[in-house]
Amino acid sequence: MSTNTANAANTNTVRSGKPSNEIFIGKKPLMTYVTATLVQLANEPTVVIKARGKSITRAVDVAQIIVKRMDTLGYKIGPIKLGSETVQSEDGRTRNVSTIEVPISRAR
Amino acid sequence: MSTNTANAANTNTVRSGKPSNEIFIGKKPLMTYVTATLVQLANEPTVVIKARGKSITRAVDVAQIIVKRMDTLGYKIGPIKLGSETVQSEDGRTRNVSTIEVPISRAR
Repeated sequence: MSTNTANAANTNTVRSGKPSNEIFIGKKPLMTYVTATLVQLANEPTVVIKARGKSITRAVDVAQIIVKRMDTLGYKIGPIKLGSETVQSEDGRTRNVSTIEVPISRAR
Repeated sequence: MSTNTANAANTNTVRSGKPSNEIFIGKKPLMTYVTATLVQLANEPTVVIKARGKSITRAVDVAQIIVKRMDTLGYKIGPIKLGSETVQSEDGRTRNVSTIEVPISRAR
């Protein structure tokens, strides 16, 4: 894991004032979020992967990559929370968008 | 709820030999799956909404519509399961695709 991606993920989270154990899935490559989650898991017992709308599938992908491909590290998925938020589009109309929270923690 | 959609959803599930309390999310309109789930919930205490890949977001949408918009009916979401399957594309290459299982049950 190159240190500058790790640092970027780390400082990026701290600078934006978010709790440091939350990872928001956006449009970056999948492995960026896998790396950021692993970096957080080095410091925090649990990291929560959050996503909404179309990114929900990518949040599940990140969780599966960490738990399945890196199963020697012994991470496990905690109770998953579903929810929905009201979002306002540019034309002022509001619509509901689904959200997911996937907690990942060290098993040991 | 028009009876023929209800019957279509019902017989459709029984004919295909799947357990009758499972709903697989595909490419049909969202409300088709909401209706099918509600019809199943009239007969079964718990219905499991299943999806994989890009349909995962739609499974979460269906669950949210049932639990949020129809909250007078008092349904609740059970423990969600994530997983992954190996899928073979036409060119013979295999790839992992994430899966989700969202159980919905009558609260009362």
